[in-house]
Amino acid sequence: MTFQDPRPAQASHRLLDAYRQIRAHSLSLAAPLSAEDQCIQSMPDASPTKWHLAHTTWFFEAVLLDHHVPAYEAFDRRLHYLFNSYYEALGPRHPRPHRGLLTRPSLDEVLAFRRHVDAAVEALLATADEQALARIAPVLTLGLNHEQQHQELLLTDILHAFSCNPMLPAYRTPAAPALRLAAAVPEMRWLAHGGGIAAIGHEGDAFAFDNEGPRHAVLLQPFAIADRLVTCGEFAQFIADGGYTQARWWLSDGWAAVQSQGWHHPAYWLAQDDPRLALSGHHGTAGWHVFGLDGVRPMQPDAPVAQLSFYEAAAYAEWAGARLPTEAEWEVAATTLEGFRQADGHVWQWTRSSYDPYPGFRPLPGVAAEYNGKFMVGQLVLRGGSVATPPGHGRPTYRNFFPPAARWQFSGLRLAKDV
Amino acid sequence: MTFQDPRPAQASHRLLDAYRQIRAHSLSLAAPLSAEDQCIQSMPDASPTKWHLAHTTWFFEAVLLDHHVPAYEAFDRRLHYLFNSYYEALGPRHPRPHRGLLTRPSLDEVLAFRRHVDAAVEALLATADEQALARIAPVLTLGLNHEQQHQELLLTDILHAFSCNPMLPAYRTPAAPALRLAAAVPEMRWLAHGGGIAAIGHEGDAFAFDNEGPRHAVLLQPFAIADRLVTCGEFAQFIADGGYTQARWWLSDGWAAVQSQGWHHPAYWLAQDDPRLALSGHHGTAGWHVFGLDGVRPMQPDAPVAQLSFYEAAAYAEWAGARLPTEAEWEVAATTLEGFRQADGHVWQWTRSSYDPYPGFRPLPGVAAEYNGKFMVGQLVLRGGSVATPPGHGRPTYRNFFPPAARWQFSGLRLAKDV
Amino acid sequence: MTFQDPRPAQASHRLLDAYRQIRAHSLSLAAPLSAEDQCIQSMPDASPTKWHLAHTTWFFEAVLLDHHVPAYEAFDRRLHYLFNSYYEALGPRHPRPHRGLLTRPSLDEVLAFRRHVDAAVEALLATADEQALARIAPVLTLGLNHEQQHQELLLTDILHAFSCNPMLPAYRTPAAPALRLAAAVPEMRWLAHGGGIAAIGHEGDAFAFDNEGPRHAVLLQPFAIADRLVTCGEFAQFIADGGYTQARWWLSDGWAAVQSQGWHHPAYWLAQDDPRLALSGHHGTAGWHVFGLDGVRPMQPDAPVAQLSFYEAAAYAEWAGARLPTEAEWEVAATTLEGFRQADGHVWQWTRSSYDPYPGFRPLPGVAAEYNGKFMVGQLVLRGGSVATPPGHGRPTYRNFFPPAARWQFSGLRLAKDV
Amino acid sequence: MTFQDPRPAQASHRLLDAYRQIRAHSLSLAAPLSAEDQCIQSMPDASPTKWHLAHTTWFFEAVLLDHHVPAYEAFDRRLHYLFNSYYEALGPRHPRPHRGLLTRPSLDEVLAFRRHVDAAVEALLATADEQALARIAPVLTLGLNHEQQHQELLLTDILHAFSCNPMLPAYRTPAAPALRLAAAVPEMRWLAHGGGIAAIGHEGDAFAFDNEGPRHAVLLQPFAIADRLVTCGEFAQFIADGGYTQARWWLSDGWAAVQSQGWHHPAYWLAQDDPRLALSGHHGTAGWHVFGLDGVRPMQPDAPVAQLSFYEAAAYAEWAGARLPTEAEWEVAATTLEGFRQADGHVWQWTRSSYDPYPGFRPLPGVAAEYNGKFMVGQLVLRGGSVATPPGHGRPTYRNFFPPAARWQFSGLRLAKDV
Repeated sequence: MTFQDPRPAQASHRLLDAYRQIRAHSLSLAAPLSAEDQCIQSMPDASPTKWHLAHTTWFFEAVLLDHHVPAYEAFDRRLHYLFNSYYEALGPRHPRPHRGLLTRPSLDEVLAFRRHVDAAVEALLATADEQALARIAPVLTLGLNHEQQHQELLLTDILHAFSCNPMLPAYRTPAAPALRLAAAVPEMRWLAHGGGIAAIGHEGDAFAFDNEGPRHAVLLQPFAIADRLVTCGEFAQFIADGGYTQARWWLSDGWAAVQSQGWHHPAYWLAQDDPRLALSGHHGTAGWHVFGLDGVRPMQPDAPVAQLSFYEAAAYAEWAGARLPTEAEWEVAATTLEGFRQADGHVWQWTRSSYDPYPGFRPLPGVAAEYNGKFMVGQLVLRGGSVATPPGHGRPTYRNFFPPAARWQFSGLRLAKDV
Repeated sequence: MTFQDPRPAQASHRLLDAYRQIRAHSLSLAAPLSAEDQCIQSMPDASPTKWHLAHTTWFFEAVLLDHHVPAYEAFDRRLHYLFNSYYEALGPRHPRPHRGLLTRPSLDEVLAFRRHVDAAVEALLATADEQALARIAPVLTLGLNHEQQHQELLLTDILHAFSCNPMLPAYRTPAAPALRLAAAVPEMRWLAHGGGIAAIGHEGDAFAFDNEGPRHAVLLQPFAIADRLVTCGEFAQFIADGGYTQARWWLSDGWAAVQSQGWHHPAYWLAQDDPRLALSGHHGTAGWHVFGLDGVRPMQPDAPVAQLSFYEAAAYAEWAGARLPTEAEWEVAATTLEGFRQADGHVWQWTRSSYDPYPGFRPLPGVAAEYNGKFMVGQLVLRGGSVATPPGHGRPTYRNFFPPAARWQFSGLRLAKDV
Repeated sequence: MTFQDPRPAQASHRLLDAYRQIRAHSLSLAAPLSAEDQCIQSMPDASPTKWHLAHTTWFFEAVLLDHHVPAYEAFDRRLHYLFNSYYEALGPRHPRPHRGLLTRPSLDEVLAFRRHVDAAVEALLATADEQALARIAPVLTLGLNHEQQHQELLLTDILHAFSCNPMLPAYRTPAAPALRLAAAVPEMRWLAHGGGIAAIGHEGDAFAFDNEGPRHAVLLQPFAIADRLVTCGEFAQFIADGGYTQARWWLSDGWAAVQSQGWHHPAYWLAQDDPRLALSGHHGTAGWHVFGLDGVRPMQPDAPVAQLSFYEAAAYAEWAGARLPTEAEWEVAATTLEGFRQADGHVWQWTRSSYDPYPGFRPLPGVAAEYNGKFMVGQLVLRGGSVATPPGHGRPTYRNFFPPAARWQFSGLRLAKDV
Repeated sequence: MTFQDPRPAQASHRLLDAYRQIRAHSLSLAAPLSAEDQCIQSMPDASPTKWHLAHTTWFFEAVLLDHHVPAYEAFDRRLHYLFNSYYEALGPRHPRPHRGLLTRPSLDEVLAFRRHVDAAVEALLATADEQALARIAPVLTLGLNHEQQHQELLLTDILHAFSCNPMLPAYRTPAAPALRLAAAVPEMRWLAHGGGIAAIGHEGDAFAFDNEGPRHAVLLQPFAIADRLVTCGEFAQFIADGGYTQARWWLSDGWAAVQSQGWHHPAYWLAQDDPRLALSGHHGTAGWHVFGLDGVRPMQPDAPVAQLSFYEAAAYAEWAGARLPTEAEWEVAATTLEGFRQADGHVWQWTRSSYDPYPGFRPLPGVAAEYNGKFMVGQLVLRGGSVATPPGHGRPTYRNFFPPAARWQFSGLRLAKDV
């Protein structure tokens, strides 16, 4: 999504189109959900749908409108306290674990908040001259990318919320098979790379997050990387081989998680004797089932395995006699190796790279400085993009990141190895 | 509420009337609340409104209809897993802390569940002969008293949920002043009792919970008891005198709670510098404010202090040079001493009595055995009744009970002393 | 132990004798333990042996010497911060859970502290005239009874500490069989009491704790009480009958403890497959083993069951078709019923009475006010005395108390029932 | 320390010398400590001195003697359960948080265990032929380096234990000023590096841990690095400037730690009003004090700041307008830049590098595979070496690692910046 257009009117139109399209997409994601569904929070790391709808709107109000529209009248200043996420520079805020307790403002009020802000943004764009547009465009673009990130979180979070309901309701009625390859999965092939100096990271005028830059040279050892993702069928073999019962495959912290949390399989898999199978109407069926946006369905052996923690991904790779790729390997392979399949659109792919700053990394100025850099410790990088990533949001340089124990994302893995 | 009527048709009519009235009252309590409001759970000890509506209905289905209606068809058997509270004998159940995650079944479905059960109960009553009625009446009566208990919990729980919203919304629009005496509070007077043998506890055919019996003799020392409840104005003096900063007034566990939880005043009081005053539209007003069903209001000096833990009640009594009454003293005074005011309708009154079984106590037979006796450890008895207690539900022999740190009930105190 | 002697010189001698005997007994209890053993703390509720030795000494320094010896020079004022237990009125103190981190002062220094205080106390007694003695005697007597309480805690706490060592070392080399009846246990007999008005509680000049008074009349229903304690062999039947796997026998909080803590048998029992049997040199032996002061030994069917929580005691009683006695029943039976065996010297006996104040209870004046009354909530009364209670310390009016989940005391049960 | 000597007899002698010297050093570190001191554990992440002495000995028995001495008789097999640290392949083990509860075996027994193993190792070396030596040397060398690591941990852990004693005892009597530069600290100078390809990591026959290799090329951007460590005086300015009260300097997790843990200054600093100053005999002195191996001493402005978490180091760097070096920058600078001072012997230096595997990393075979690789997630790399690191133990390629919140190591920082 590039908005740096040489022709102002065009730029303004393109921004407006993007704004409308992206804002409408959030609402369409919420459409299958009742007001009750949209209100709850299933764990401190997840947020209610309503909160996502309001928080992304707050971002436009607090970061764009309050600074670029003279005498802008906020919808309700109290919402700034409620819907700030973590921006210390933007004042105190409602504690994260209590987001699910905000039955007020109601969903209707949040939707009115959205309309109020949408009208103001559209009016701003309609009247902005070239100079104003140059000031506005980066903030607006950041706000839209921010909203797209929350669109994915909205889906991951509501899926987690539904996973806590023993009836395991479906987010949507099953239509086209999701998270599945169009055809049968071919045998996995190794794609070789000879190593050497390569460049990774974002550069140019198109939008990217600050953590994707600066583009810089890296030195790679020769390596090979799988042409496709690890499948559920393959992961089931790891389980059948005692993968969750043997310390040898696991990092120390991973093994501690396996034991203290009682992990026996991926978070959203249901074993044959799971009582929730009956509650969700699947009793009597043999084999693994998997819970997803379409509800509970028999495990698809050729679908990429998903909702995996880094610990599980790394243990699988160890068991498979391979390893996870580094993020540099992933990016170089994804952008230069022919035959690299399933780069995005399925699951985010855990890498063996901690989320550290790139050489020369500088946070964005102003409020946005808190956007990415503040989180660069204790997390691992994921690359690619998932079925829940909004179309047009991703890039090969995109650096997603989560703590190693996170199991509620659309996250899987692709193998790599030294050669 | 006595249902043991010698004339069967009359008895059936009275039961039906009571059933309709009480079931309707639950709905009227939920009426001011949105589906979102009714869905959330603000802490493990509280439950969502929707859960209360469903659980009380499950009780009739599981304890009455399943046993007394041949070939009864349950609305949806899965609800038994979701809406059992703690009855071990009635099968496994959804974990209590996750009640707030049940967006499905929706509120509409729960209301349909209620209608389904109501129709079946009414049909049962319409066709029951004398013998059947004799079997049904005790179970139905227990179910109705159970629902009345949950009506009070519904109010206490939604009030707690709203107390977690920094905008502190009001449950109802303020009308008649609640929790207030009709006239100015007179000076507190001591009512004296000479002690001796007295009888407490329930006996007779009218409904009472098993923990209220058997009626038995107790031996009292001479004592005096206050004719009215401790007021907010009086409690404010305790605070002003450093009540929350001096260990000497507190039981050891109470002082530990003061320090570890940071108690400075009753849970629903707001000090002058509380930021939530602004968020709820009360900035600029001096003095204490109190949050309640009517929202935030200036503290009423003559209103009974409420939402007090046992620890706070006991500390206040110590500071005031008095003590809390035992439950036997309370019951004897309430039933025999002239001038005993505010026995009920305002706040439950903490006693100095642990919730132990009465001599000769026997739990109800069957499922109801788990109703009261199972909880007879670690709790304190409260007597009286509150503004949230449904009319007709209480009795002077009624034994309410909560752990000593509970601060979200309509609970206050009345002083007593040795003479 | 009565110290109110009409003849001052005699009184002084008797006090001195008692002081020397009791102080020496503490040291003899610590004698089998190394400096390392005496230093550790196995849980926040337990204290190191060294701490007990120092704290009881601090009590004499802070409560007696500082107030009754002009220009008394403390051994080291810093110890007051370290060895105060919970007396708010006596200043700030080292946090309880960190008592096991005090390697300094060393055991040698603590023993020197004891000698310093002993010398000062003895000098005080030697020079006190009649008036002084009258002032000193109550404080000194309290200090000695306080030290005796800590003698029992010393044993229970070191036993708990050793229970955390997988080699399960013995506190003492086995000599005479402990916790065992002299002869075979006779069949349990029920002793009947006709009820009516009786008096319980302490009165008179002899020493007693404030919580034992005032003596007062109680009204008892007719009851029967077992003539002896429940034995290990009887408790093993409860286990064999699935006692720890069926909710029906347990109070609600008790059942929650069984499940969350994984209770399968009394805390110090070892099942046949316990890996610690091998580490402690008992592999290959069949049946239950029990850990105690003599180390691991085969379970003695006729020994009283010990280290039982209230929850387990109450569950056993329910299973046995009986109940626990109230503390009034226990005291009246122990003092009036012929054939009442094992009143003390074996295990403390859980009663069904919460630890509430007696009618007219007044705490001791001054510092000692914090001694008992502050803990009168959330605990249950135990009566009798145990093998770890120092000789001469107990009385039939003695009220011991612990929270219902406590499992590291010498605590068991005796059955009672309504008649 | 290189043990791969071409001449077997020489190699054997050198190994024996190293063994004796290193084993003796452990005992000399424990010498100032009483048996009580050596027994306690102040937090789950720290271990008792006695445990360190036993665990390092167990390592030789379990990894060397059991495999290389036919018919070796262990001192006491039960110690394998007690003193295994985390080697899953070597069987079950005593839970880490309970290491401080092992008063038995006594210190004397642990010292006897050491002598037993020492005798067996010396006998093995005395009789080993060339072939045997070739098999033994790597294991023995690993064992010695392992023991050296625990020598540093022994000091850090006992320092933490003493920091929990409000009297803040000194580990040693103050002698030569520790942690201090020989002369006044010069102004910090920036050392520039032009970037480009460089090699880092260990190679060659000398001993190194598996995580230091393989040696590999890295591509550096131009950078500058400080010639010396950040001092206490400099860090005090950060504090005085409100460093601990402003979110802007901190990583998000770091700020959360500051707030939830109440950090106001480095862990072992004492503010002027700290009550422990009086307890440790320092009342009345103005300014900061710092607790260390010499006890409490006035803060030395020119001493390197120590016991810093990564969060604090990173916040300081941000405040100073700089950043932490990467580990590659550190290693290249330390080995190639003239004027690079304080590389080791003072404090470990936090880098901005997560502890990820080097390209081509392979764990050691066998049991030692669990040594390093298992921990490569969630930690940060520290470089250099500290005053507590045994002489001869370190190397410029050495990769130390700790979680970002760890505050009990001899850890500080050196600044870097982009150029």
